[in-house]
Order: sequence, then structure tokens, then C-alpha cells
Amino acid sequence: MNVNQPRARPPYQALRDKMACPGALAHAMAAHNPLSAKLAGQAGFDAVWGSGFELSASYAVPDASILSMSTHLEMMRAIAATVEIPVIADIDTGFGNAVNVAFVVPQYEAAGVSAIVMEDKTFPKDTSLRADGRQELVRVAEFQGKIAAACASRRDVGLMIIARTEALIAGLGQQEALMRARAYVEAGADAILIHSKQPAPDEILAFIAAWQGEAPLVLVPTAYPQLTERDIRSLGKVGLVIYGNHAIRAAVGAMREVFAQIRRDGGINQVDRTLPTVKDIIELQGDAAMRVLEQRYLR
Amino acid sequence: MNVNQPRARPPYQALRDKMACPGALAHAMAAHNPLSAKLAGQAGFDAVWGSGFELSASYAVPDASILSMSTHLEMMRAIAATVEIPVIADIDTGFGNAVNVAFVVPQYEAAGVSAIVMEDKTFPKDTSLRADGRQELVRVAEFQGKIAAACASRRDVGLMIIARTEALIAGLGQQEALMRARAYVEAGADAILIHSKQPAPDEILAFIAAWQGEAPLVLVPTAYPQLTERDIRSLGKVGLVIYGNHAIRAAVGAMREVFAQIRRDGGINQVDRTLPTVKDIIELQGDAAMRVLEQRYLR
Amino acid sequence: MNVNQPRARPPYQALRDKMACPGALAHAMAAHNPLSAKLAGQAGFDAVWGSGFELSASYAVPDASILSMSTHLEMMRAIAATVEIPVIADIDTGFGNAVNVAFVVPQYEAAGVSAIVMEDKTFPKDTSLRADGRQELVRVAEFQGKIAAACASRRDVGLMIIARTEALIAGLGQQEALMRARAYVEAGADAILIHSKQPAPDEILAFIAAWQGEAPLVLVPTAYPQLTERDIRSLGKVGLVIYGNHAIRAAVGAMREVFAQIRRDGGINQVDRTLPTVKDIIELQGDAAMRVLEQRYLR
Amino acid sequence: MNVNQPRARPPYQALRDKMACPGALAHAMAAHNPLSAKLAGQAGFDAVWGSGFELSASYAVPDASILSMSTHLEMMRAIAATVEIPVIADIDTGFGNAVNVAFVVPQYEAAGVSAIVMEDKTFPKDTSLRADGRQELVRVAEFQGKIAAACASRRDVGLMIIARTEALIAGLGQQEALMRARAYVEAGADAILIHSKQPAPDEILAFIAAWQGEAPLVLVPTAYPQLTERDIRSLGKVGLVIYGNHAIRAAVGAMREVFAQIRRDGGINQVDRTLPTVKDIIELQGDAAMRVLEQRYLR
Repeated sequence: MNVNQPRARPPYQALRDKMACPGALAHAMAAHNPLSAKLAGQAGFDAVWGSGFELSASYAVPDASILSMSTHLEMMRAIAATVEIPVIADIDTGFGNAVNVAFVVPQYEAAGVSAIVMEDKTFPKDTSLRADGRQELVRVAEFQGKIAAACASRRDVGLMIIARTEALIAGLGQQEALMRARAYVEAGADAILIHSKQPAPDEILAFIAAWQGEAPLVLVPTAYPQLTERDIRSLGKVGLVIYGNHAIRAAVGAMREVFAQIRRDGGINQVDRTLPTVKDIIELQGDAAMRVLEQRYLR
Repeated sequence: MNVNQPRARPPYQALRDKMACPGALAHAMAAHNPLSAKLAGQAGFDAVWGSGFELSASYAVPDASILSMSTHLEMMRAIAATVEIPVIADIDTGFGNAVNVAFVVPQYEAAGVSAIVMEDKTFPKDTSLRADGRQELVRVAEFQGKIAAACASRRDVGLMIIARTEALIAGLGQQEALMRARAYVEAGADAILIHSKQPAPDEILAFIAAWQGEAPLVLVPTAYPQLTERDIRSLGKVGLVIYGNHAIRAAVGAMREVFAQIRRDGGINQVDRTLPTVKDIIELQGDAAMRVLEQRYLR
Repeated sequence: MNVNQPRARPPYQALRDKMACPGALAHAMAAHNPLSAKLAGQAGFDAVWGSGFELSASYAVPDASILSMSTHLEMMRAIAATVEIPVIADIDTGFGNAVNVAFVVPQYEAAGVSAIVMEDKTFPKDTSLRADGRQELVRVAEFQGKIAAACASRRDVGLMIIARTEALIAGLGQQEALMRARAYVEAGADAILIHSKQPAPDEILAFIAAWQGEAPLVLVPTAYPQLTERDIRSLGKVGLVIYGNHAIRAAVGAMREVFAQIRRDGGINQVDRTLPTVKDIIELQGDAAMRVLEQRYLR
Repeated sequence: MNVNQPRARPPYQALRDKMACPGALAHAMAAHNPLSAKLAGQAGFDAVWGSGFELSASYAVPDASILSMSTHLEMMRAIAATVEIPVIADIDTGFGNAVNVAFVVPQYEAAGVSAIVMEDKTFPKDTSLRADGRQELVRVAEFQGKIAAACASRRDVGLMIIARTEALIAGLGQQEALMRARAYVEAGADAILIHSKQPAPDEILAFIAAWQGEAPLVLVPTAYPQLTERDIRSLGKVGLVIYGNHAIRAAVGAMREVFAQIRRDGGINQVDRTLPTVKDIIELQGDAAMRVLEQRYLR
């Protein structure tokens, strides 16, 4: 419910500011619906990660360009309408070539997101997290064109364009990753997401040490959870850490347990005491604000 | 992935059979996306409850006709395409009058649901679970028209039309509830969902004792969790019990805890060990079936 | 394709200015998709009327709250993203009560519309144009609450809230119509759409003569086409005329003729010469701009 | 409105029968919404062509994989729910690789289409009708995999899988086109759409003369309108002719003229007499059936 006042500043500004601040580190939590995004905001996260992996998982389909762009875009719109913190949209490979990107980015911008992350894999993508997934990268010049198209097609230059390179994931090594990162910044990227699936952070730490670019780095430490925010802050070049799948993992674990116990018990009496109350959920749904509306406008 | 064989029998048949079987009691778990539906099936539930409350909650909006029909319908379609067990769609008040119902029901049927539940409240509805919500019922004849329209507009008479009366919720008493239930069966309803928000099951038990109709009853014991399936089976007239909100409550509780711990820890190292693995999620996404497709068809 | 510059002024400003200018009269053409909206802009219309009647007709369903809000909202978003002229969204009765309106209006605003028109009929509506449709109005105070909710829920007070009274359509007479119009302006409406289905404009002319309010009037002269813009301008109190169904009527007439001739001819040779060329359609699709994108960004 | 009877036979059967009947030729008209599809059925066409070109044009965007799959799929669902004649869905390149196709085809089947047409171009596609569009084909084996995936993923083997080769469009010559057509039939295609943009039918006629396959051919004579159905029938190998863009071209021509005249006239008085009446449109919307519903079920 608005009060007829334009927002003082667009949500991307807080994200840009924190990512640019030396010694600071923004943190984003994955969400697969507005409720998980709202809980992330309440928990104190700086931003929401509009994860393609989590959304695909919530539809029980592989993270392999199976869901259509519309499904993801609509979810970003619903999330951005719900939370105050900035939303970072995971647009995978951009849903086509540079021309498609030029049509896609304004739609995400209009949906209210503060940043988009686009990766340099071929379409259709395969999830980066599989042991033996298909991981093929597009040519550097081609991806530069996609970044340039993204930058030129945003209405407001405040919208962050984050380029994600999968060079390490694809096994192409640090030099390729550095070269690509530099090329992407040159093409206009505001930040570089460098992804690794090595179970130790060495590969990532080596990349960070070698990175001489101006643009801040973004990490997704799924594979190397031992790297803490304190560790990352001390490195000084990373502006954002994204926790990419912990909302859906938490939800799955809990639903499994609760469902199993209900079947074991043949009823809900036991689980009922351990769960958030219905009243609690109703409050999360914005009940209080709705009651204000009722009192003011239902005559 | 299908094998070019029509299903031996429509999913509604299993639900109809169990609900009609003396001494048996079907149980349905609420879901708010295909993943929670899939977990419900894996846990052994007989059916999925396509809950308007859970879906609204997952969008962080009140369960008060705020989400459009399209959003709910699309979710039912995605769920029905994912699970083998029957899907029971919660269509609230039917999205309008009897004419609207005649347009709505074929769309839900085409989406693959096995049953629809329609309630006798006025539009826009308020959730039955609020302490002081607006709870107004439409005239009996009007709701009979809506039931008749639902029955006549389904293509396959196997689709179950379940009438839900909120007479007890609205405080109108047992006689009104019984009269309405009878009238709805007369209009064609296949079953009667009788809802109560009394914290003890007495009101419901009295209704069941007084019910002389042929149609099976359906219970949603959110308010009176102490009533077990064993208790309900012993009553002999109830064909289905629906657990209406335990998926979203489980998910909320777990996400809250995990998010809070990540903020406390400044990282994911601690939570990572307690959560289902990424590999586990990928398997839930149907990774194995996808790899079969890759091997067969990617040339 | 944008050029990284915020629009100098929001599209609603042009509409507000023209409607407020003494002696001027804005004109809007109905559209049922972005293409018809684009053609309306090219023809010189001041605005697009996001007609529920035309959209329902394009889906071959009655204009009776059969299409869900999502379908209409998405079409408004697509239209507003396509045209430079302001879009006036026909939101029927507001998709529920005042609480629903408070959730609906921000979504239309975010979709880029410049004005919404809401009517004082009960839900589900019936089209105003049927000879014997159901035409029941809500209480004045109830509709005032809906208007107030619409005004309070817009983020930018520039978004126009136009109240449409069906008092004349419902046969309640001029005094009721005037009283309702005044009450709606009092509740915050920026303009009043006064609708009539009399085949002569006398009823409308009498209403206009009697109208003493500050707010400009809006006419939809479907039933009385003889009233020209020159006539209307001379009346001095009308700010906007809406042509509510001429896009779909033109399309239907032409498709019927062309389809019939193709069947008669057993081929397309004859009709081909009389139709816009494929090249012409491709240009309407923005081919030139796409080729610029290709040259700039496909590398 | 259904009458609780399953359809005697699926809509694809009529299409299959006519395409298989020696001396017969099925004809399909393009549609961009349910209304144009309904008009095509009323005019006597055998089938509806669910054209990506027309749908893109109706959104005023290039036919270049700009609209998402969801938009097209939803339109197919709405069309198939409206018309009795079979719907042939244009799924472009299949929205990804063979894995994506395996996820896409069941969704179109569930949407009620009778056939899908998939083309052998790379993603993102460019329209075949542009003079200098990008026209690159995928490898034969790759497209065979996509066809095989389409065939294996349909639930009912009656759903037609039509393979469209753009070999002539891409300038690869008749031998390549024949080789591809044969390979696609071998992979399971039920028919071959052979496309040409030569302004004379010679190229197509030569292909048809050389075609020795069992599978029927499909033509889209946009570029060579002089070839009549009588001509095509006499060739004996073609089962279906598709008129790919005449609905949208008719609509555009008429809207342009009507809009221009309204601006010239400063009103609708002149055009009103030349257009189908509002009553006519209301009848197309199914008003009569709705009134039956009202009388039966509104109590």
C-alpha cells in the first residue's frame, strides 16, 4: 500500500552503494516466491537472488531452460512488488542472442528488479551444479554483444548488469576466466560473477588475487561453504555474495520431515505444535495492512 | 515423460474409489507448488490439496481473492503435470456466479485436476481461518445453481464436484449446515466439505453424527488437530481429510531458522550440513529422467 | 529500444493536459492487442482504450468477467510497452471490493497505464451494450470507498482514476446519475465516464447540460454515433471521447470477407492483392529497429 | 459448454483422415486469437494454423523468438478451447534442444492442439519471410533427435508431428531439402512442411515432383499465391495447405482504414454503417449460450 509518494531512491541504489563501499559486502539470499523473499528481507539480507535454480526446483523441473521466460519474469515482478530490498534477477543466458537480450532486459527492468545476472553459456543451459552437465561457453565477442545490448536497452543506467562467467565451471582455467571478465567489463558490465564448483575455495581465491579490474566481483559459495563473509570482506574486491539455493533446501527438508511425521502419526496433532501457527502465516500475508484497508474503504 | 500410452485410468478414479470405500479414508496434503506436491506424493499422501490459502501465502498476499484465477489455475496445471496422485483444486467461491463457474470448471478440468472444491461464501472471500473475517454466505438456491453449473460444464462426469459449506464458520449453526449440505447434494455435489474453526472437534462431530446424506464428508482439521485419521475413520461417514496449510507452515519455519542462522554465522558453513544437499534437490527436479532424454535424443 | 534516458514526462501528462484544456477534446481508440494499439497511435489518436469488451471479444467469450484479471493486465502491459500514447485501462468493476481495488491499481500502474476506468456495477458484470443484460449498481458509499482505495493505492497521483457510472444504462435516470457523479468526484475521481445506450444522444446531452462538477466528463458514443467530436467540443465539459469497439469490429468484418473469398476462390491469389503485404506487417513488427540491434550487437 | 460426454473422436483424427485421403487437401487458416480462429472455422477451413508470425505481429514484435513460449502456448490453449476444428501449433524451433522439446510437446498436447510443426532452424529463429534474414539450419542428426523426442513425449500417438525444413529458404537446394525430409520422416515425422520464398512455385513444384516419401507434404504458399488448391490437389502428394498470415493482414488493413476515416471524419458516424454491428460481435462472443446458462443456473 503506497502513500502517493514516489520512492525516495530506487532500490538499486542501496545495492550499488554497498557493493562500491570498500570493506563492505552485500549479501543476497535466493528466493523462489514472494514469501521466501519476504522472509529473506526480514532476516536482514541486503538483497533477493531471483534464482532460476530455485524457481525450477519449485516447479520440480531441471534448471535447463525448461521453464519459460514468462514464468521467471512474472515471479520477479511479484517478488519486487513484495519486498523493499533490491531484487537481482537470474536471467540465465539471456533467452537468446543479443537481440533477444535487448527485448528481455526492459521487461525485467519494468518488473522492478535492480540487477540482472547473465551468464556466458550456450542456450539451452544446463545447471552449473551438476557433476557432468553440458557446459559450453559462447564466444567472447558474442557475449560482449549481449552485455552491450543489455546496457543499451535499460531505460535507467542504474539497473546493474552483472556478467557471469562460467569459464572455471567449464574447466577453461583462470586465464580464460580473467580474459573473459575483463572483456565483459569493457563491454559495459557493472560487476563480474565468477563461479566455481571446486569444493575448496582455492580456485576462487586465486582468481580474486589475480583480478585487477575496477568492477566488483560476485561470489556464489555453494560449493565452498567454508568461505565466510568475514573471509570474503578481507579480500577486498568482492562486492556481493549470493546464497543460491538455501531457501528451497530449507523448505524441502522441512516439508519432507513434516509430511513423513503426519503419515507416521496418522494426523497433525504432533506436528502442529512444532510449526509456525496459521496466525503467524496470516500475518506474513499482510493481514494487518488489509484490515486497515477494510476499515478505511469498505463502507 | 510419457510412453505413448494413454493412462489406464484417470487419476480421479483412485480418489473416488477410496472415498467410496467403507472404512477407508483418503488424505490430502496442501501444496503451493509442484515441488511440495511431489514431496506429498513421495510421503504417501493420497492426493494434493491445491490450496488457495497456501498459494496466497506463497505470494505473501491475503487469502481474500487477491490472486487472480489465472495464477491459481496455472499452478494447478503445473502440479497436475508433475504428480501421479489426484489434485483437488480449491476454487474458492468459483470466481463469480453460476455463469462464471460454467466457464471456470472446464478450464480446471483441462488443467488435469480430479476434483474441485467450491465454497458458499460471497465474493470476494475472506479466509475462513481469521478470527474476525467477513463470512457471508450466498443464498442456498444461488449456490445450488453454481453446483449445477459446475456439474453440467465438466466434460467427464468423473471430475468430482465438492461443495464446501461455511455455515458453521459463519456461525449459522448445525441446522443451517445440514440443510445446506443436503441442498448441495441435491444439486449434484459429489461430496460435502464441512468446515469448522472451533478449537475442539465437538461441532464437527455433532454435524457428522447428524448427517444422513449419501454423499461422503470432507474435513479440514486445522483448528482441531487432535482428531486423528483413526478417529475419523471410526466415524464412518468421512471420505477425505485435508491438511490445509502444513506445507507452507513447514517451509516458513525452516526458512526462517536457516536464514537467521546464516545471518548470525555470517556464512553458510553451519547450515550447509543440516540441509538436503544440492544433489538431492537436483534429483527431485527429475535429473535422472533428463539424462535419459539427453542420451537418447541429443545427437 | 531505449536510450538510457528517463522519459521527459509520464504519458499520463499529455492526457491530463488535453482533458483539462478548455475547448480541447482527447480521443481514444479501443485496442485488443499491441498491434491495434500501435495502429491507433499511427492514425493519430491521443490515447488507447484498453477495452474489456474488445479483449473478451478477441477471446470469443462474453464481456462478463469471464477473462481473468491477469489476462487483461498482461495485455495492458504489452500495449503500454508498445505505444507512446497513454493507455486507459478498463478495469470493469475493479475485480472485487475496495480491498481488491487497492491491490489491483498498483499492478495496473506498474504495467504502465496512464488511467484506469472503474464502473459502479456489481461483480460479475454484464456488458453494458446488451439489450437485456443484468445491470445492477453497488451502493454509492461502497463505490466511493472503491474510488478512494484506488486513489490512495496509486504510487503517483498523476495516474488518472476515472469513475464510470452506469446509472443511465441501468435506467435509474439523470438525477441518480448526477448524484453518483458528484459523489464519485467527492471521493477522488479525476473524471466521470457517463454511459448511455440510448440510440439518440439526448439523454447524454441532458446530463452534460445539467453537470455542474469541476471534473471533466468522458463519453463512449457507441450507441449514438451521430454525435461528432466537433459537437462534443462545443459542449465544453467533455474532456475525452472513447471509441469503444471499432478496432475489433473492423478486424472481424475484414477477416470474414477475406476468409470467405479464399474459400470461394480455393486459394489466396485474389485476396493477396488487396491485403497489406507481408513486408508491411514485418515493418509494423519493428523490423527496422531489430536490424539496427543486429548490426550493433550480433558479433 | 459441454454435455458430459467425451468427444466421440479427437480433433486430430479429422485432420489425419483428410491428409491421408488421396485427392483430398486439407486447408488451414492462420489465427492470432480465438476470435480469428472461430471466424476461420465458420468460413469452412479445415484447421487453424497457430501461427507464430501472426501472434508476434499481434504483439507488434518481430517473429524472432521474442515472445516467450508461454505466450504462444496459452494462446493455443485458448484457441483449442474455442474451436471444434483441429489446431496446428507452430512451435518454431522447439524452444531449445531435444530435451526441451520433450518438455514442450506434452504441454502443447495438453493444451488441446492436434499437430505441432517444428522447423530445422537454429534458435533464436528469424522469420522465413524476410529478404535477408538469418537462416541457419541445425545438423540433420540433431533435428532427427528433436523429432524423435517430440514423438516419444506425446501421450497419444495421434498427435501429429510435422517437420518443417527450411533448406530451400536457406538456399541449400533441392537435394538437401529432399535428404532432410527423408531423414525427418525416418525419425518419426508424420508429415513434411516444405517452405519456399520464391515468388514462383517452380522450386516447390520441383521438390514435390522429386518427393518419393510416404509422408504427406504441407505447403505455405505465401510467396507464390498463384498456386491454387485445385493445382495442389492435382499434384497428389500434398495433404495440407496453410495460409499463414491472411488473418492478421486482413485485420491490419481494415483497422488502418477505419481508424483513418474516424480521424478524418472527427467521429464514427460514417464508419459505423460499414462495420459489423456490436450485436454481431456479441453473438460471436457466445452470447446465446451464455443466456442459456443464465436461465438454467442463475437462481
